[in-house]
Amino acid sequence: MPAAAVGAAGAAAASRDADTGPVLVGTDEWKAMAEAGARYPLFARERARIEASVRAAMDAGVVVPRPKDPGGGYTHEQHKRNYLAIQNAGALYRLTGDRAYADFVRDTLLEYARLYPTLGPHPAGRGEIPGRLFWQTLNDSVWLVHAIQGYDAVRAGLDPEDRRTIEEQVFRRMARFLSDETPANFQRIHNHATWAVAAVGMTGYVLRDEAMVEKALLGLSRDGEAGFLRQIDRLFSPDGYYEEGPYYQRYALAPFVVFANVIERNEPQRRIFERRDGVLLKAVDTLAQSSYAGYFIPINDALLDKGLDTAEMVAGIAIAYARSGDARLLSIAERQGRVLLSPEGLEVARALAAGEAEPFVFRPLMLRDGPEGDRGGLALLRRGGADGQLLVMKNTAQGMGHGHFDKLNWLFYDNGRRVVTDYGAARFLNIEAKAGGIYLPENTSWAKQTVAHNTLVVDERSHFGGNWRRGEAHAPTLLLFEAGEGLQIASARMDGAYEGVAFTRTQALVEHAELGLPVVVDLLRVHGDRAARYDLPLHYAGQIMKVGFDARRELGQRPVLGEANGYQHLWVDAVGEPSAQTRSLTWLLDGRFYTHHFGASAPTRAILAESGANDPEFNLRREPVLIQRMDGQSQASFFAVLEPHGEYNGSAEYVTGADSRIREVRHFRGATADVVALTLVSGTELALGIAHYPSAGPRHRVAGDGHAYEWTGPYARFDRPATARRNGSNTQAKNAQGKKRP
Amino acid sequence: MPAAAVGAAGAAAASRDADTGPVLVGTDEWKAMAEAGARYPLFARERARIEASVRAAMDAGVVVPRPKDPGGGYTHEQHKRNYLAIQNAGALYRLTGDRAYADFVRDTLLEYARLYPTLGPHPAGRGEIPGRLFWQTLNDSVWLVHAIQGYDAVRAGLDPEDRRTIEEQVFRRMARFLSDETPANFQRIHNHATWAVAAVGMTGYVLRDEAMVEKALLGLSRDGEAGFLRQIDRLFSPDGYYEEGPYYQRYALAPFVVFANVIERNEPQRRIFERRDGVLLKAVDTLAQSSYAGYFIPINDALLDKGLDTAEMVAGIAIAYARSGDARLLSIAERQGRVLLSPEGLEVARALAAGEAEPFVFRPLMLRDGPEGDRGGLALLRRGGADGQLLVMKNTAQGMGHGHFDKLNWLFYDNGRRVVTDYGAARFLNIEAKAGGIYLPENTSWAKQTVAHNTLVVDERSHFGGNWRRGEAHAPTLLLFEAGEGLQIASARMDGAYEGVAFTRTQALVEHAELGLPVVVDLLRVHGDRAARYDLPLHYAGQIMKVGFDARRELGQRPVLGEANGYQHLWVDAVGEPSAQTRSLTWLLDGRFYTHHFGASAPTRAILAESGANDPEFNLRREPVLIQRMDGQSQASFFAVLEPHGEYNGSAEYVTGADSRIREVRHFRGATADVVALTLVSGTELALGIAHYPSAGPRHRVAGDGHAYEWTGPYARFDRPATARRNGSNTQAKNAQGKKRP
Repeated sequence: MPAAAVGAAGAAAASRDADTGPVLVGTDEWKAMAEAGARYPLFARERARIEASVRAAMDAGVVVPRPKDPGGGYTHEQHKRNYLAIQNAGALYRLTGDRAYADFVRDTLLEYARLYPTLGPHPAGRGEIPGRLFWQTLNDSVWLVHAIQGYDAVRAGLDPEDRRTIEEQVFRRMARFLSDETPANFQRIHNHATWAVAAVGMTGYVLRDEAMVEKALLGLSRDGEAGFLRQIDRLFSPDGYYEEGPYYQRYALAPFVVFANVIERNEPQRRIFERRDGVLLKAVDTLAQSSYAGYFIPINDALLDKGLDTAEMVAGIAIAYARSGDARLLSIAERQGRVLLSPEGLEVARALAAGEAEPFVFRPLMLRDGPEGDRGGLALLRRGGADGQLLVMKNTAQGMGHGHFDKLNWLFYDNGRRVVTDYGAARFLNIEAKAGGIYLPENTSWAKQTVAHNTLVVDERSHFGGNWRRGEAHAPTLLLFEAGEGLQIASARMDGAYEGVAFTRTQALVEHAELGLPVVVDLLRVHGDRAARYDLPLHYAGQIMKVGFDARRELGQRPVLGEANGYQHLWVDAVGEPSAQTRSLTWLLDGRFYTHHFGASAPTRAILAESGANDPEFNLRREPVLIQRMDGQSQASFFAVLEPHGEYNGSAEYVTGADSRIREVRHFRGATADVVALTLVSGTELALGIAHYPSAGPRHRVAGDGHAYEWTGPYARFDRPATARRNGSNTQAKNAQGKKRP
Repeated sequence: MPAAAVGAAGAAAASRDADTGPVLVGTDEWKAMAEAGARYPLFARERARIEASVRAAMDAGVVVPRPKDPGGGYTHEQHKRNYLAIQNAGALYRLTGDRAYADFVRDTLLEYARLYPTLGPHPAGRGEIPGRLFWQTLNDSVWLVHAIQGYDAVRAGLDPEDRRTIEEQVFRRMARFLSDETPANFQRIHNHATWAVAAVGMTGYVLRDEAMVEKALLGLSRDGEAGFLRQIDRLFSPDGYYEEGPYYQRYALAPFVVFANVIERNEPQRRIFERRDGVLLKAVDTLAQSSYAGYFIPINDALLDKGLDTAEMVAGIAIAYARSGDARLLSIAERQGRVLLSPEGLEVARALAAGEAEPFVFRPLMLRDGPEGDRGGLALLRRGGADGQLLVMKNTAQGMGHGHFDKLNWLFYDNGRRVVTDYGAARFLNIEAKAGGIYLPENTSWAKQTVAHNTLVVDERSHFGGNWRRGEAHAPTLLLFEAGEGLQIASARMDGAYEGVAFTRTQALVEHAELGLPVVVDLLRVHGDRAARYDLPLHYAGQIMKVGFDARRELGQRPVLGEANGYQHLWVDAVGEPSAQTRSLTWLLDGRFYTHHFGASAPTRAILAESGANDPEFNLRREPVLIQRMDGQSQASFFAVLEPHGEYNGSAEYVTGADSRIREVRHFRGATADVVALTLVSGTELALGIAHYPSAGPRHRVAGDGHAYEWTGPYARFDRPATARRNGSNTQAKNAQGKKRP
């Protein structure tokens, strides 16, 4: 009898556990973490950090205010604190066995059970679909993704009555709200919907509600037209690039990998991490590659301070490492200095403690855009490792509503710094004084506009007339990407950004023994069907050292450059007369000099300006820009060489290489190709031949300065020493395909 | 016979060694370094570094060009490289015994022996006394201080003919040039002369020329009216403050401590380090205290990038440590990561290897100015350690030609950043494109002007009419300095900056439990003999979050603020209407918010502006300023509270404390004192009573808002909880002297 009774009780307990035990992380996994965690410093430190923060929340007591404030306001921040406290207290309960943590989760959720059923649309809701706890549904989804994890950890030990109350009044209501009641959000192929399906799906697993899980995976109709699987298929390119760019890729990544990890644990037969050639794990690697000096490349709407150390990336790295065993990811985890309190985090901490990390190697990459990889792409030309040179060519598609109007834009990093810049988004996230922390009006009037980028502006209007839906219809065509020794090159063509105008841009990162550092060669060719104004801005960071052209200065009264499309935000500092010469601008940034040599096929004015005009609320950063302006042409070429050089050491008081090592930059046009030729100070010539169409004709011939550059193929590099030039002898083409005839 | 012969030879060798052996560092000391150096990582690393740099110089061969270029130009930099190579190769010869090093020193100096006698005044000389090798004599002195050390190390082993050639054609000629032939430089009490006397004196010791040494110590007439000893007596205050400020103190320090160290070694009976209570060692400590986040406080002409890691400070710390044994200095050496290749450097490296370093504690300090300590002073109010709060009140004297017109100016540091700023100098040191690397025209037209600082401007003119010689005649009077628990306070009065105008400023760093961080309280009282325009600028770093006052914005056309005295360099962004209210401006800097609450005794306009107008060569940094402007008053008070608060974490996406915790700031005037009262958000009041004259009358009474603040002494702090205020009960004065009556 006693034995049978025990057996029955045991079976009942097992059955109860089967219904209520943790499923997001298994009971055994929690046990393993509780036992092994202290042995691995990173895990132990994270646990201590979490304990301190949860203790602070418990000391403050259960505080569940009625929703009122937008992002950054008190109620917003308190509900954020609550979901973190619920998640973390749940974990600590499992790691320590201390009931106080479970009680705190229960008491907090019971308070939500009282509040939640009384809530209607959030009073600060605007624009986006309003949430209940937060001003936008998105944050409600995020709340649920976190809170359900804490609940899963404590659920088994709850009084059945409390369990029912919490599940009926909070979790089922929220899941319903986020799915059936807001289909316009749930059914989208968009990162907001990813958070929603993850929240609903994870809740489904915890509540053992298969229908809920299925909706999350396959959409409300369970037909696969929406839902998580469809999102995986549509939101990432085959290279793991996310169409909105790295900033939102980071944000979207968290629910993707966290939910996928839950699916893998509960339904391994779905082989979710193998879907589309393992695109989810690829996306983690791609995102890490899309960073420089720890920060994500801020194309499209992006805050500059997001990078590898964000919580989303901590989750991404741990889950990707646990699935792939790729030891290079460990060095990123080491840099983050944080781990998840999860089995995956434990594995990262163990591997790091065992010294298994390998360096993460930043390398040149072409990240194709679009679900089929045929909607342009992001070209990353890279040299010199983590703090070396990174040339980003933004040849991607529009990227929906957060996309900027900057087709064939470029950015350049060097020496650990942003040198040729992208403004990113105009927004102070969660700062109430700044329009409640949402995107500022200047995000539309400045940050998204073409003139705020480093690409072609026609007639002072932005690409696609500033209409992103029109932008969605046109993606750049990738023409070329090659990353060879000493020369990396990318090229793309854009049609449709302006009616009747096509433009092609080729950029290369070129090394030469006489140039201490790689230089950027840039060639932009425009074909318009009528004469227009062409502006080509270059936004740079640094203090001007030398203005290599004559310009009328605006000394005592500073006008704005234009009326609209971002031009109204530019203060003019100087305007040069139209000139057909190659000119230059030299600036200093963090101890290194940069000289931009620029010219064009017809005379251009050089304009020096700065952002910050017509900014009544001081919402803009004030940053300099150089604009090349050509008027009255339809066909045009712009060429430039950006040259990092020298060193200024203010502490040790020495200066080296303050002068450019390039004496002259010239541009020669041929029938089927162009040549950009650099004459170095020594007389040595370095030239780059670029075919108009990579596929067109096998052989190109461009005459220049009494010589002819001849080659086969899309491009060629020509190296001619000073002596050879003096003797008029043949050019030595480093590229076997290239040859120059006297 | 043989024995006698040996004896005679030995004596001859000893006598030869006595004439030619090293005296700047002794033979035994070189031996000790050669033997022990490898054991101490810092010393070993420095030696390896030096070896690499000397090897590179030797590989390049002896290059001694005819002087031509100004600072930053090729010949300038090459002669700098040469003196370092000579010094370092000499040291390596002694440390390794490798003759190649000595040969390189000899060959280089023989080349100088050919060149030097042919030189007249440097072709790029201007302004200052032109040198021979460099555009100014100063650099020639620096050359000699370094080169003579390398020569001292190799001298004994040279062929007598080479020795004679080098000494006659280089060292004696240079010493003569720097002393007898340029008395206007040598006889000054000025840092340029310190380099000259050090160069001449060290050369004297090496050449065993007592007269030369005496001139260096006592001046050309050897009467003590000039020379090194006089400089020690006149250039430092009793607190070790150097009148030009920390930037030049760093520069002056090197020859002071290096030459003193040589004197100590050769004539210990002079007890040079004990002179004036050990002022030279005190000066090293004072200079370290005059830094924040590793950088020196940039008052007067100062580049922002100079700090604790400069070569001068490496020398200063090593020599001071070797003399004082103060283990706190070791932690600065550790931060520097470099040591001298000298007995003192060896001692530092040994002590660091032995783990003897103790933390360098930054503390509140009053650094009196002037040889007698009665010419004002620099007040450093400090809290929270190295990266905490530092309030600098610049109550010093003019500081000669590099002094700025900024009496009673202030700076504020917090969170590792410059918050309330000083522009420093307008100069790009050694960058040829920037006026040859010397001080720019904008140094005079902007950086030195009063409006470029955070202090009173009367009628848009600078202190002393911008004439530093007039400024030399007037120093501030120090009224108060106390650094107590929770309250640090300093006060000073300035007469003579403007005719008929005196002003008194009191600043305090005040802590309160309800304010997370200390706040700055500022009270500036002006007494003029006629109505005038009073401007009080606040130069700050950060992006505006909230403009707490109405202002007309200059949105589409940006005028300049004024015509001259620095005003021509200010672009106007916004101008408020005259207001008698306390207003505020909130900005964000590196994740922390700052709210400046400000008001005055009569209506003021608040003007928002930015530097950078009328700057044809783009020489200025563009930095924001808030100016309070009062018109038509003669007597006036300006009061303000600067409050650091909250946190913006863009990576983890949270914002706390974005709103000021101060509801109201009021100012009450009494007959003998003023009160600045802060009402916190909770209703708690914190007030500071400040007597007009610290010595005047024992008792002060100031009525304010139906209460009376009463106290005895120069100042009092009043703390009144919200409940006490609601009940109208008496104020609780934390300071035992203060009491408030209802």
